[in-house]
Amino acid sequence: MRHYRRELWFHVPGRRELINITPEVQKCLEESGVQEGLILVNAMHITASVFINDDEPGLHQDYDEWLEKLAPHEPVSQYRHNKGEDNADAHMKRQIMGREVVVAVTRGKLDFGPWEQIFYGEFDGGRKKRVLVKIIGE
Amino acid sequence: MRHYRRELWFHVPGRRELINITPEVQKCLEESGVQEGLILVNAMHITASVFINDDEPGLHQDYDEWLEKLAPHEPVSQYRHNKGEDNADAHMKRQIMGREVVVAVTRGKLDFGPWEQIFYGEFDGGRKKRVLVKIIGE
Amino acid sequence: MRHYRRELWFHVPGRRELINITPEVQKCLEESGVQEGLILVNAMHITASVFINDDEPGLHQDYDEWLEKLAPHEPVSQYRHNKGEDNADAHMKRQIMGREVVVAVTRGKLDFGPWEQIFYGEFDGGRKKRVLVKIIGE
Repeated sequence: MRHYRRELWFHVPGRRELINITPEVQKCLEESGVQEGLILVNAMHITASVFINDDEPGLHQDYDEWLEKLAPHEPVSQYRHNKGEDNADAHMKRQIMGREVVVAVTRGKLDFGPWEQIFYGEFDGGRKKRVLVKIIGE
Repeated sequence: MRHYRRELWFHVPGRRELINITPEVQKCLEESGVQEGLILVNAMHITASVFINDDEPGLHQDYDEWLEKLAPHEPVSQYRHNKGEDNADAHMKRQIMGREVVVAVTRGKLDFGPWEQIFYGEFDGGRKKRVLVKIIGE
Repeated sequence: MRHYRRELWFHVPGRRELINITPEVQKCLEESGVQEGLILVNAMHITASVFINDDEPGLHQDYDEWLEKLAPHEPVSQYRHNKGEDNADAHMKRQIMGREVVVAVTRGKLDFGPWEQIFYGEFDGGRKKRVLVKIIGE
């Protein structure tokens, strides 16, 4: 069995942003030499997500507004977690969008449907944060 | 390491439907010959889900109404994504229900609790769409 | 390829509770002897979750209130599933929090970011329920 591990680092200057990380993950897959197996891509932080959806700016704005409706940032005092912090909403947004994706590797490629792209979803930016890429297979 | 790959195709005539795909996934597992390992089952489209829950029609109607409350289809103009499309809500419903499940394989069987069943969740039907089944193990 | 399987049992006396199961999962990993691979940890019941987030009591209360807002338990008659049951809301809460996590194993350890902890999320307690730990790797 082959295995491969790499961390991808991101620094989002604002609070929230969605970043297409598919090219970085593809590069990891090429480096790994794995032809058949599984890739796990997960946020290593609990106020961020890794998810698969469409790379369409209108949709990304829709996601941002929708997540704000389901788990509003303000007023920060509505959350018990926000003692010396203001990121409780980010812990909730991350649960809706998810922590991780598992992607099939087939003949050395990410085995994707026509529009699948992998995103890093930052909900509490302003500092360096990491994504883990782990690949197992042969 | 053994590996197996198959696509399952679905054509939901209406907009939304939940389909129990457990028998098809079990057939894939039997074909694969894998006795111990992991199965990944994922929607290959970004307006559909694969998830595990109960095969109970009342619950499925509840899910449909609940998802409509959290991410309503109408008015379609409320979403920026809906320029020449009307499926922004389906991209959101899919995030709540999830893209994929990973299931343990033990002694050649889906290692399930008493009521676990795998569903394809279509949120933007009317055309042929796919699910990927990838199995690795031995 | 090595493989390992264990069930973890929980009995939450009330309806809802979040339990940190990271130490139990770590013990499983040590028992397995796997150095490089993947761990799947999933609820075997469809009204419970396994998820990764922060072990902070204020956040856990926030989650509870937030999930009650998104999928209220009462009135139980609002759900079609609740014929002789009252747990439809638990099937929804579980979809938001997720069924499973997949965690990388690197050099024999759970490959975690600084605050990642694994939780069992019970949304319909009062009876014994199970979590599956499956590990594959080498």
